[in-house]
Amino acid sequence: MGRAHMKYLANGEVEGAELAAVCESFPPNLERARKSLPDRVACFSEPEAMFKSGTIDAILIATPHYFHPELAIAGFEHGLHVLTEKPAGVYTKQVRLMNEAAAKSGKVFGIMYNLRLLGLYKKLKDLVDTGELGEIRRTSWIITDWYRKQSYYDSGAWRGTWAGEGGGVLLNQDPHQLDLWQWTIGMMPKRVRAFCAFGKHRNIEVEDAVTAYVEYENGATGVFVTTTGEAPGTNRYEVAGDRGKVVIEDGKLVFWRLRIPEPQFNRENRPGDPEAWKIEIPVKEGSSDHMPITQNWVDAILHGIPLIAPGEEGIKGLTLSNAMYLSTWLNDWVELPIDEDLYYEKLQEMIDKSKRGESH
Amino acid sequence: MGRAHMKYLANGEVEGAELAAVCESFPPNLERARKSLPDRVACFSEPEAMFKSGTIDAILIATPHYFHPELAIAGFEHGLHVLTEKPAGVYTKQVRLMNEAAAKSGKVFGIMYNLRLLGLYKKLKDLVDTGELGEIRRTSWIITDWYRKQSYYDSGAWRGTWAGEGGGVLLNQDPHQLDLWQWTIGMMPKRVRAFCAFGKHRNIEVEDAVTAYVEYENGATGVFVTTTGEAPGTNRYEVAGDRGKVVIEDGKLVFWRLRIPEPQFNRENRPGDPEAWKIEIPVKEGSSDHMPITQNWVDAILHGIPLIAPGEEGIKGLTLSNAMYLSTWLNDWVELPIDEDLYYEKLQEMIDKSKRGESH
Repeated sequence: MGRAHMKYLANGEVEGAELAAVCESFPPNLERARKSLPDRVACFSEPEAMFKSGTIDAILIATPHYFHPELAIAGFEHGLHVLTEKPAGVYTKQVRLMNEAAAKSGKVFGIMYNLRLLGLYKKLKDLVDTGELGEIRRTSWIITDWYRKQSYYDSGAWRGTWAGEGGGVLLNQDPHQLDLWQWTIGMMPKRVRAFCAFGKHRNIEVEDAVTAYVEYENGATGVFVTTTGEAPGTNRYEVAGDRGKVVIEDGKLVFWRLRIPEPQFNRENRPGDPEAWKIEIPVKEGSSDHMPITQNWVDAILHGIPLIAPGEEGIKGLTLSNAMYLSTWLNDWVELPIDEDLYYEKLQEMIDKSKRGESH
Repeated sequence: MGRAHMKYLANGEVEGAELAAVCESFPPNLERARKSLPDRVACFSEPEAMFKSGTIDAILIATPHYFHPELAIAGFEHGLHVLTEKPAGVYTKQVRLMNEAAAKSGKVFGIMYNLRLLGLYKKLKDLVDTGELGEIRRTSWIITDWYRKQSYYDSGAWRGTWAGEGGGVLLNQDPHQLDLWQWTIGMMPKRVRAFCAFGKHRNIEVEDAVTAYVEYENGATGVFVTTTGEAPGTNRYEVAGDRGKVVIEDGKLVFWRLRIPEPQFNRENRPGDPEAWKIEIPVKEGSSDHMPITQNWVDAILHGIPLIAPGEEGIKGLTLSNAMYLSTWLNDWVELPIDEDLYYEKLQEMIDKSKRGESH
């Protein structure tokens, strides 16, 4: 991912930004970068050296998950603006510290939630924010089209391990959906009961299949189902409100709009069922490219434009996945916000037992 | 429902069957039936009197749920064949006794699972039985198109009560789906974790919204989501196997068929994702009328034709709903088969607290 970011920045595609330096700890990759870049771009093998170099104003972090918060914190401490890849980190304790460092620094902090740019999700958020859908009652996201073979997990010793990645499908494939699930409806669950299956379809330590049930403060309920072991998968997101229902599937958003809100229909005891208009809402496709998120972050730095994906919001999606693991490990409900120390402790137990990958 | 059965039987629509008697305990209804029927049809207000009358060979039971098993058992004891409306009963302890009485009697025992006649579900069962779908891995049924207003629950003192009906949406609206969920795939879950919400959308004692998560013996998982409080609801049944996926929605069955089964594709580490053909399987519509189930039962009695819905299978769907309540009340997993005594005890607690309806 870092290579893609480097490329569009080196090409000058982001207005107002200049690629001043890159940092890469793996020597062959650094060498390759050096060869592909103009001489004016400084190359570093140690983040600290780059942060202190005085040649940069801002950093874009694209490393294994575990390093996102520690690099971001170091960046803020050096007075740099930060844009981090998702997920925000592996455990919320670390990410909360990152958020605190960001707040203290006053620098611009973004996260690479590029799917927030997709018309489908923007439109759903719009329907919720403007009250078209009414009070949210039920959500259901079946996102199982992440097919991964054993060879994918075998392609790096860190993959599929607690020590190396800190999670499976939730942390590697689902960060966007976990973000959008809360961003589109503007609500986080208040409690979670989840069922993660570890190494079910593949020979890995981490989870490759999850079903989670959640309850929201307003009484709404939700289901999130995901796996890397299914072909062909499903990607279907359904949100029911008291003024209708939205289904996003196959690149389309369909809105069933009630002429009379359900509570009123019930109260007035009108005959039959509420009339629902099936509406195909026009959706501007939008781009799910990463570059526009980087552009928006640069615009925020230079011109004070609001961020599409503030970095502080990365903790939300991560809280959802942390809660799902914790619920599975405890075989019980998990209330939000989660007990971040308990989660860290449990994760550490997994890392200690981890057979492969780097350790932290 | 009893009136509809009476009508087609009185009209001679069921070949080989003759309506010889009716039994109705509510005098105005009995009087109305008497007036509408030919004189040769005997009318009773007490089941026992009808059973002993010698005028009948078989009974069709269409009463409140609680009475199905006790009437069936009495019928078997009088040497009568029995066809019962669904659900089989309210608690499995009672239904097991009914099944034992049926076995002991040697009489033909059917249950009114008329949705087994629908082409969509027959075809899915066919795809599973013939191995087209492969090993089942995941099921998901979102069945929320049961919109009921408060006025529905207020239309009878027994409605929405533990004493009167013994359950809500699971027992009154979902018996067909709970049957089809296991019948189509030929598997019952081995354990259930469910979340029933009681009186959430309506002023009732029983559940009007449920999310259930299940695990099957072979490692497959499933989700069942239902409510009477949503408009417009969803009815979408998805089954993923290791040879593809079926989705039944909007009266259509779509089969995504893998050219190479997923486990083989993974083992051979073939490039990309498995090729899936999207196929609209032709489905004979079939009738979901009740009459053909009655005809089949009569044919079974007279000619030994196999039953489409053997009465003994009614315990399966009921076990699923009983397990969902129990899991909610215990706030824990429930293993199948459930502890029928514990369930009966818990149900009794609910009935004892019940404010409305008849008591049993």
